[in-house]
Amino acid sequence: MPSNLKWLDHEPKLLDEGAATAARVRQGELTKPPGALGELETLAILLAGWQGRVQPRLERVHISVFAADHGVTDEGVSAFPASVTAEMIKNFVRGGAAINVLARALNATLEVINLGTRGERVVAGPHDVVLGPGSANFVHGPAMSQAQLEAALEAGRQSVERALKSGAQLYIGGDMGIGNTTAAAALACALLSAQPEALAGPGTGLDERGVARKAVVIRRALERHAGILNTARDALQRLGGFEIAALVGAYVRCAQLGLPALIDGFISSAAALAAGRMRPGASTWWLFGHRSKEPGHGAILAALEARPLLDLGMRLGEGSGAAVAVPLLRLACELHAGMATFAEAGVSEKL
Amino acid sequence: MPSNLKWLDHEPKLLDEGAATAARVRQGELTKPPGALGELETLAILLAGWQGRVQPRLERVHISVFAADHGVTDEGVSAFPASVTAEMIKNFVRGGAAINVLARALNATLEVINLGTRGERVVAGPHDVVLGPGSANFVHGPAMSQAQLEAALEAGRQSVERALKSGAQLYIGGDMGIGNTTAAAALACALLSAQPEALAGPGTGLDERGVARKAVVIRRALERHAGILNTARDALQRLGGFEIAALVGAYVRCAQLGLPALIDGFISSAAALAAGRMRPGASTWWLFGHRSKEPGHGAILAALEARPLLDLGMRLGEGSGAAVAVPLLRLACELHAGMATFAEAGVSEKL
Repeated sequence: MPSNLKWLDHEPKLLDEGAATAARVRQGELTKPPGALGELETLAILLAGWQGRVQPRLERVHISVFAADHGVTDEGVSAFPASVTAEMIKNFVRGGAAINVLARALNATLEVINLGTRGERVVAGPHDVVLGPGSANFVHGPAMSQAQLEAALEAGRQSVERALKSGAQLYIGGDMGIGNTTAAAALACALLSAQPEALAGPGTGLDERGVARKAVVIRRALERHAGILNTARDALQRLGGFEIAALVGAYVRCAQLGLPALIDGFISSAAALAAGRMRPGASTWWLFGHRSKEPGHGAILAALEARPLLDLGMRLGEGSGAAVAVPLLRLACELHAGMATFAEAGVSEKL
Repeated sequence: MPSNLKWLDHEPKLLDEGAATAARVRQGELTKPPGALGELETLAILLAGWQGRVQPRLERVHISVFAADHGVTDEGVSAFPASVTAEMIKNFVRGGAAINVLARALNATLEVINLGTRGERVVAGPHDVVLGPGSANFVHGPAMSQAQLEAALEAGRQSVERALKSGAQLYIGGDMGIGNTTAAAALACALLSAQPEALAGPGTGLDERGVARKAVVIRRALERHAGILNTARDALQRLGGFEIAALVGAYVRCAQLGLPALIDGFISSAAALAAGRMRPGASTWWLFGHRSKEPGHGAILAALEARPLLDLGMRLGEGSGAAVAVPLLRLACELHAGMATFAEAGVSEKL
């Protein structure tokens, strides 16, 4: 492994089992039938283990959205023109995108990182790392060079370190990149040995013919790279995208530093799949926000043994599906801390 | 119909189709692929139709929790003693129950109404209407008299009128009553011609034998009242409970006055089922907050053609599952109002 990627080998942080156990005991003492708060109980116990305190809080949420273009859009795999990636970066900067609205509503920190778009150069913010005019068309060769892969992973890592430095208690990674459902599906096909038809979906709105064409493009790419996709890192370099690689770096770093990551939809889950292969054990620091309407998401979630919190038919990216799940985590903390125990309330326990 | 129940015949209020249509148009103009926010788009459009404005808001939420005991607990159908109903009322008053915590976190108004408990008389608040020491054991006769039914329905109606008077934009009804999953299951069996085994579940935590006994108790009750359960009102009087009848009155009144109701779990949905039979068309003013872990909920939801927003394995009652869904409605409003349009942001539309 190149020396610049040695950090990927660091072990995930251990959970605080003592705090988790104490939180589990507390859940059993609260004035409700045992288990009656369902996954809200599990969330409170998880957060206790992550934060190392029996009564976790979730005030500070950090969102990093990574944007990049994809050479594979030359194959006509998207319902929107590639120019929308740069246009949406400008929309993020002006505060008009869905994730801007959600970040404001949740009082979350939001930063956008441009990793490289086509055409006119746009500035997303001070943490931009422009690696080129988007990734290369992976039907003809690797999506990115070794140096680009390292820099993209590093951009994700840096975003987690900034989040932690600013006191974040939860990390959300988001994506923007016309063509990135094609890249994510290709990457997941390689990692899961799945058929393109099973993972290619409408993305931003392809019709049936468009989805079929997308599957053919992915199949050509898998054939082009056959035999040289030996590791998750190879697959990420050859079939991924800059923003997908950044999310991989971020999710690995979250686990290493003990910052819980709330994972978004299809793109983010494909990145999590690669991250889990590259750094086994990392998934103990991840939660999944929602089940995307993108049909291939189910297969990726199943491979990750993940059960997302929400299933609202969303398929926007930007971290939006994770952001919408944040109030559930906050309410789980509130209930855990604020409810009376049977003893405090003088309520009789189970017969 | 007795003159005291004439109000049940009033028509539901009509939605503002113009506002809903304008909201649908706006959703199509926001900077996202069409439909990419999934049910959050549907919620914004629904709320627009309900509130009669293109950009709905959801600041003021009202929660009424109705508490009552059930004579059928004499048959050993609950994992908790009947005394817990009164003990939990005291817990509500002191602010220690789950719904207290949720109401505070959501900045919602919460009132608790005692409709009649066993043993020691407890005061929930100024709107208590004590109809007796709980309902009668419906294995031996009607759960309540005609006068008790009327008063319970009226208690629900009054809570909605108070909510509206205080400016509420959303109504949540909650329940507390040891034994009430037995009453709700019996009521739903009568309304759906379902088998008790299909609708009896663990409630607050019965084991398998307990659930089987509960189904036998419900079967005995259905046999006892066979041939005299001709209307939903008959079924409610004979097999329901005071708090269930209050929720029925509330859900009907919400529809008549045009106050959207966010319906909770198993008990609330059984009440909604009866309310929909008694006042057809009322369901246009209802949303369903969550899918309860109580196994019979699925059959009731299917009959209501309802798809709840959340599925978190909750089974607490008190309105808690509805309350946990409130942030989704609020975020739907925020996104709808706060996102830029394609024109405003200069983003290209679909190819």
